[in-house]
Amino acid sequence: MTAVDWRTYFAERENKNLEELYDFLRIPSVSALPENASDVRNAAEWVAARMKTAGIPEVEVLETGGHPLVYGKWHVDDSKPTALIYAHYDVQPPDPIELWETPPFEPAVRDGRIYARGSGDDKAGLYITLLAVEAFAKTHGKPPINLVFFYEGEEEVGSPSISPYLTAHAAKFASDVVISADGMMWGEDQYSLVLSSKGMAGGQIDIITADSDAHSGIYGGGVANAARATAAIAASFHDANGKVAIEGFYDKVRPITEQEAAEIEAVPFDEKAFLGTIGVTEPAGEADYSTLERLWLRPTLDINGIWSGFQGDGSKTVTPAQGHIKITCRLVPDQDPNEINDLIRKHVEAHLPVGARAEFELKTGTANPFSISPDNPFMVAAAETLREVGGKDPVFVRTGGTIPIAEVFKNHLGAEMVFFAFSIETCNAHAPNEWFRIEDFQNGTVATVKYLERLAQ
Amino acid sequence: MTAVDWRTYFAERENKNLEELYDFLRIPSVSALPENASDVRNAAEWVAARMKTAGIPEVEVLETGGHPLVYGKWHVDDSKPTALIYAHYDVQPPDPIELWETPPFEPAVRDGRIYARGSGDDKAGLYITLLAVEAFAKTHGKPPINLVFFYEGEEEVGSPSISPYLTAHAAKFASDVVISADGMMWGEDQYSLVLSSKGMAGGQIDIITADSDAHSGIYGGGVANAARATAAIAASFHDANGKVAIEGFYDKVRPITEQEAAEIEAVPFDEKAFLGTIGVTEPAGEADYSTLERLWLRPTLDINGIWSGFQGDGSKTVTPAQGHIKITCRLVPDQDPNEINDLIRKHVEAHLPVGARAEFELKTGTANPFSISPDNPFMVAAAETLREVGGKDPVFVRTGGTIPIAEVFKNHLGAEMVFFAFSIETCNAHAPNEWFRIEDFQNGTVATVKYLERLAQ
Repeated sequence: MTAVDWRTYFAERENKNLEELYDFLRIPSVSALPENASDVRNAAEWVAARMKTAGIPEVEVLETGGHPLVYGKWHVDDSKPTALIYAHYDVQPPDPIELWETPPFEPAVRDGRIYARGSGDDKAGLYITLLAVEAFAKTHGKPPINLVFFYEGEEEVGSPSISPYLTAHAAKFASDVVISADGMMWGEDQYSLVLSSKGMAGGQIDIITADSDAHSGIYGGGVANAARATAAIAASFHDANGKVAIEGFYDKVRPITEQEAAEIEAVPFDEKAFLGTIGVTEPAGEADYSTLERLWLRPTLDINGIWSGFQGDGSKTVTPAQGHIKITCRLVPDQDPNEINDLIRKHVEAHLPVGARAEFELKTGTANPFSISPDNPFMVAAAETLREVGGKDPVFVRTGGTIPIAEVFKNHLGAEMVFFAFSIETCNAHAPNEWFRIEDFQNGTVATVKYLERLAQ
Repeated sequence: MTAVDWRTYFAERENKNLEELYDFLRIPSVSALPENASDVRNAAEWVAARMKTAGIPEVEVLETGGHPLVYGKWHVDDSKPTALIYAHYDVQPPDPIELWETPPFEPAVRDGRIYARGSGDDKAGLYITLLAVEAFAKTHGKPPINLVFFYEGEEEVGSPSISPYLTAHAAKFASDVVISADGMMWGEDQYSLVLSSKGMAGGQIDIITADSDAHSGIYGGGVANAARATAAIAASFHDANGKVAIEGFYDKVRPITEQEAAEIEAVPFDEKAFLGTIGVTEPAGEADYSTLERLWLRPTLDINGIWSGFQGDGSKTVTPAQGHIKITCRLVPDQDPNEINDLIRKHVEAHLPVGARAEFELKTGTANPFSISPDNPFMVAAAETLREVGGKDPVFVRTGGTIPIAEVFKNHLGAEMVFFAFSIETCNAHAPNEWFRIEDFQNGTVATVKYLERLAQ
């Protein structure tokens, strides 16, 4: 392929491209709200039509049972790798709508940012990938590698149709790597690549001590109190050093390597600002680890909710009969969600106070931990591209959250996921006044074409 | 005074008396419901009118700021003791009304029981005292001792006006003993006398770790979790033996005496049935004490409620910022509610995990423990009366509950309270289908006149 000055190429088309992005952002494709179902379908049709205009030869709107999956394929050369381009065209609900400075589905530009629901998550990201492919089509007649397109409309509701669909049609999506245009940059001037996300286990535990609540003046002190039993179980999950006290919980956890520690050390992290966002002044958690190590590399058990007995104003002198705990374990390689749920069950049964029994609604794990090596060739190419476009090394980051889709593709296609995305963490992705920077739109488009070129080498 | 065959006396008037009791029960004097305020006043006027008919020379409906207090006085002889007769004319709300077999304010007799809201708690009790006084008036022209009548209309809403009113007007109520017609017999064939009730301390404790809930995928494991901190605090209140683990909690608690142990031993107690009522099969609590000892003689700390974070269906991966605990301590002589609240505060502050702080809404103690000796002359007379009427020894029982009114009278008048009452524990006092046995109405009236006669000796 002949070299193209991509920056000039896209600069010449910038106004037209932005106008088209605004058209896409005007479609209220809120996947969570039944009343927006036709808008979600309109967005799928918009994407499919735009893919055809871009020159993609095979385009389909696939029915999955839920919102449509927009599929595309452009096979160019058997000797080249195949990348699956992942993004989503659905958006979060705009509520609370009164906190938006301008209407969520009427894009407005202020201070170099495009404000609209879905701008940062993930319509700009999706549209960037379309522009990149179109650029190759217009300049070279085809992209430099084989491409599969996977634009889903259910990301914001947990992608319920994806795994069943991939189970039935894996061959259709066969790829060597998944490039996700849904992700975040570490900071406004800091490109990043994601090395890992955590798996998930846990669910709800119910503690029962009696058939009905009792008057504490009649039964108090004479029978088990479910609120106390529930608190005792919840408190038993950690030891005094902040370690998870469930026997066997850490058995499969790999020690932190020198390379991992160095990667974390290289990440610019303003701990005070990070904690300050939620009004916290001191970190807490497992002893002997830094905050980023705890968040990114160590498995956790979080109590998401606990409740038992009376919660109203004033007092009610009740000895509660039932209590409830909701927990989430965030897992790291090589922890298995089902094994961890079994350990949770055993731990609770072993710690039940006299007179209490437990019932469990623990989710069987569908979200395993995800990780990719920074030495993976697709990661190396991504890092080199971002260094070239950003003028400095990207940082390798991780997330304490769970990215089920990464694990789904790994399971069904055997392909690793590279997050190659240009939103910024603070872009209000699920909040009012979501934004995306115009300069990231430009740089992201240039970076994406350069990344695809590099993958062809 | 000449001896009267009281049983015959009351048998001759039984039908008329029951009809009048039914009239009283038809008044829906629900003190908790604003829409029944005029009914409560009607009940007060009914009681006042009936007192006058009974021959009581001084009768007043006193305005206390809340529901009226019906007052009466009959001074007969400076050399005789003065007893204050306590009862209440207000009733609990009838909800859930659909569970009543017959309407709550239309008395119905089935199997020797009068079914109506307020029958067991406390209109039959109040009316019995009126009949007793009337009987003396009709047969002897006056009662055998001096009497003060104190019929309140706010018992079911916590008697908020009583203490302020007594503070301002203590002299009006000066008495040597308080006889409460509000109480329970131990069983259908077992009269009982109450030796003690517990005091109360506690309230709400709020645990705060951050300004707002956080995403557990971003902050989990890196900052304090309020649900976990709240559970840890709640679990710290007891040790592994079920003892309250608050330092100093037991410092003032008297050891159980041989006499107290013997009194409890004499009480027929079907522990299995007691526990079975709420679906419990094994007792729990402080080690090395029997169930009745725990309930009646040992101080307790009950968690009435605990809550933090997400409680809905499904899951929400949140790291909670706040948690809440409601506790009730039931206290025994000589524990002081204010001192116990101070100990609770100190304990919580000392047990706060890193990153958590506490706020307290603990009630300053108005309910001290109450106790009366079985050797108190008014108790001895009560026991002898019940032995005579019931044909066997009454049992000396206690309650794990709190009877603030007993302590209020002790504080303001210096008078001990004797519970001389004829409802039965299982009479559905605060539930649908409340009842009172017709035979207890007869026996209770006879017992009350005999008790007053005995107090004159």
